[in-house]
Amino acid sequence: MDRMNKFQDTRSVFFIADFAKSKGNYIVDADGNTLLDVFAQIASIPLGYNSPAFLELTNKPAFQTALANRAALGVNPTEDWVDSVQNAFMKVAPKGMSNVFTVMCGSCANENAFKTAFMYQAAKRRGDKDFSLDELHSCMKNQAPGSPDMSILSFGQGFHGRLFGSLAATSSKALHKIDIPAFDWPRAPFPALKYPLDQNKEHNRAIEKASIEAVDLLLQNKTRPVAAVIVEPIQSEGGDNHASPEYFRNLQAVCKAHDVLFIVDEVQTGVGASGTFWAHEAWNLPTAPDMVTFSKKFQAAGFYLHPRLRPSQPYRLYNTWMGDPVRAMQAVAIVNEIENKDLLSNVKQVGDYLQKKLKSMADRKLLSDVRGQGALIAFDLETPAKRDKFLIDMRQRGVNIGGCGERTVRLRPMLTFQPHHADILLDTMEATLTS
Amino acid sequence: MDRMNKFQDTRSVFFIADFAKSKGNYIVDADGNTLLDVFAQIASIPLGYNSPAFLELTNKPAFQTALANRAALGVNPTEDWVDSVQNAFMKVAPKGMSNVFTVMCGSCANENAFKTAFMYQAAKRRGDKDFSLDELHSCMKNQAPGSPDMSILSFGQGFHGRLFGSLAATSSKALHKIDIPAFDWPRAPFPALKYPLDQNKEHNRAIEKASIEAVDLLLQNKTRPVAAVIVEPIQSEGGDNHASPEYFRNLQAVCKAHDVLFIVDEVQTGVGASGTFWAHEAWNLPTAPDMVTFSKKFQAAGFYLHPRLRPSQPYRLYNTWMGDPVRAMQAVAIVNEIENKDLLSNVKQVGDYLQKKLKSMADRKLLSDVRGQGALIAFDLETPAKRDKFLIDMRQRGVNIGGCGERTVRLRPMLTFQPHHADILLDTMEATLTS
Repeated sequence: MDRMNKFQDTRSVFFIADFAKSKGNYIVDADGNTLLDVFAQIASIPLGYNSPAFLELTNKPAFQTALANRAALGVNPTEDWVDSVQNAFMKVAPKGMSNVFTVMCGSCANENAFKTAFMYQAAKRRGDKDFSLDELHSCMKNQAPGSPDMSILSFGQGFHGRLFGSLAATSSKALHKIDIPAFDWPRAPFPALKYPLDQNKEHNRAIEKASIEAVDLLLQNKTRPVAAVIVEPIQSEGGDNHASPEYFRNLQAVCKAHDVLFIVDEVQTGVGASGTFWAHEAWNLPTAPDMVTFSKKFQAAGFYLHPRLRPSQPYRLYNTWMGDPVRAMQAVAIVNEIENKDLLSNVKQVGDYLQKKLKSMADRKLLSDVRGQGALIAFDLETPAKRDKFLIDMRQRGVNIGGCGERTVRLRPMLTFQPHHADILLDTMEATLTS
Repeated sequence: MDRMNKFQDTRSVFFIADFAKSKGNYIVDADGNTLLDVFAQIASIPLGYNSPAFLELTNKPAFQTALANRAALGVNPTEDWVDSVQNAFMKVAPKGMSNVFTVMCGSCANENAFKTAFMYQAAKRRGDKDFSLDELHSCMKNQAPGSPDMSILSFGQGFHGRLFGSLAATSSKALHKIDIPAFDWPRAPFPALKYPLDQNKEHNRAIEKASIEAVDLLLQNKTRPVAAVIVEPIQSEGGDNHASPEYFRNLQAVCKAHDVLFIVDEVQTGVGASGTFWAHEAWNLPTAPDMVTFSKKFQAAGFYLHPRLRPSQPYRLYNTWMGDPVRAMQAVAIVNEIENKDLLSNVKQVGDYLQKKLKSMADRKLLSDVRGQGALIAFDLETPAKRDKFLIDMRQRGVNIGGCGERTVRLRPMLTFQPHHADILLDTMEATLTS
């Protein structure tokens, strides 16, 4: 493992930003340089810098009230909060999902989804019985049966966060995990598709099948039962790894066969960047996932869940703030803008355009392995060193762009990214890669 | 374990709030009822509802810019962020602590402090050597030596959060923990002081000594070494349990003797409510704690750390947002208000007044076990049922008040709580307890 791989993370190039001067798809740095931004604060700016929709909010009394009075939503929610939940999260709820639980960040969203899965599996095993005294006492000592030895199954190269539960499900980079105690939770291999897809059909079908078989085998473990499987629609930190819709349908089916919950982590892929509001819409699942987690572009974090997963007792999923009403009001504005400006069509159009142009650069061997869903697009360069140099060169030529995995460049533009922005990006890439 | 204990948490009474109409120490509910609020959104409102200091902020361009452009602070911080860190967190840093790491919530603050402790202990063990290949590979499978079997020592009845690492250190209530897999981390008994203190000196000295001896014994465990001890200055969720300054000095000393880190969890006790900015200031420690965590009243969350605890490689403590610049700007306003309005003196004064009056109610057997530090005051009622009824009765008489532990009532007023508010509280208590 070379030094780069061990000691550097694959973000965009670090710099101090001047957000007051930034606008739309352009970020301005502290030296006054303007950069086209296709990394967008690690995929978390939805509508562009200083979007009028967000700025208008700052003048609204309800928004100012929410800012000046931070609610502990579990004891004192407000009528405004109910509005925000309805007009942001529930308005765009994945089909068939009628409940949402809100928290503060993506890691917290995943961990609360994990807790929900563990409670569901324990309740199922317990049946009609009440908690036993043994369970009630042993959990206070972190011991079974009250603290059961269950697990979450995730995938190699997956990234689900950096807190203790989410980090145990993460395997993006050794540097994220080393020296931190971890639950002994299992990993399945994520299919490593070969590109171009139309020239590698047989290989890709075979490795997707092998991955599903590996999951099936791991779900048969009875000593440390799996409560849920968590998967990203596109493994982002891990290198923008995609799989086919059929793969994800099979993954859901194998989960269902074992009554193991199926959690889709849309922290990075959700909120329109895939060309649909949720990236997993492209899979045409026969029924909704059991849980879908979100954060980043939505400004607010949380997860959707099937009503049968609601714990039967209150205060089991709980914390002081339980989300942020201010960010939820921004989420309402995001949903409205996406609808009013038809930003999903925009993403599809610019995504198709970008993918087509990048594939022609791949034909000319300037880059390889172009893959994408909407504007969640990536390609590879020859070596980690060449990729890292490319990020720095692009920065110097006026484009802020990020990496992931070993030698991948990932595009994470905002939903307002237009074809004319794409042309600037492509021209700068052309100049950088041919210089 | 009775039903109440199993299925109810000891918060204040749930209701929908109307923050637009709330002001200062008074909260208005959705039916238009005005309540004196001594619970303050689970101890997380610093300056009163609709404080002018917070409302003024909403009109400031820098604040609006921060709201409209959420930074990923690890890649693109702003000059404003540097200002906020200096004028909020560092301005009130516990003596001897020169570094701070910011996150989104109290649980995340504690978990990142835990990660820091694990990295420190691993680095110490490793010495000058680089990560081994075995460590780098094994951690990707959640296995030792890369994922080491180290632990955090916490105390019975302690509360440090509800995510997987923080929950393993929590032992407030079975309902918080049951069915959730937990790290097998150890617990020491927290001294259960008897009141009044001046009549129970010998007993209290003995149980504090026994607690320290138990910690000392647990720190000798070599199979699952303890990386850090975490303790609350006042165990809040667990029943407002106090210990003497001498106890905490001895606790720090025993940690030092084993080179185990000493983490003070000031999520609930910090930011002035104890009469000093940090509750642990009252201990007169010979040197600063290794880490101090915060959230709640500061609106922004994070932890202070000694510079020697900074990981030697970047990106090991990291996440997308790494805190919230908007909340950090509010933290600056809080620090300024505390200073300009001398709110610490106010807290001391009203705290002394309240404690004196409550002790006289204890003399009349209306309540018992009055204890407090500044305005972080608690007392017990005879039974859990009587305590729960008291919270509801007080709510009906116009005071929003919360519980904790088995039969404890905890006061968590805002920093702007005045003697005339205290009189309303006391009169309402008197009427409730004698009716």
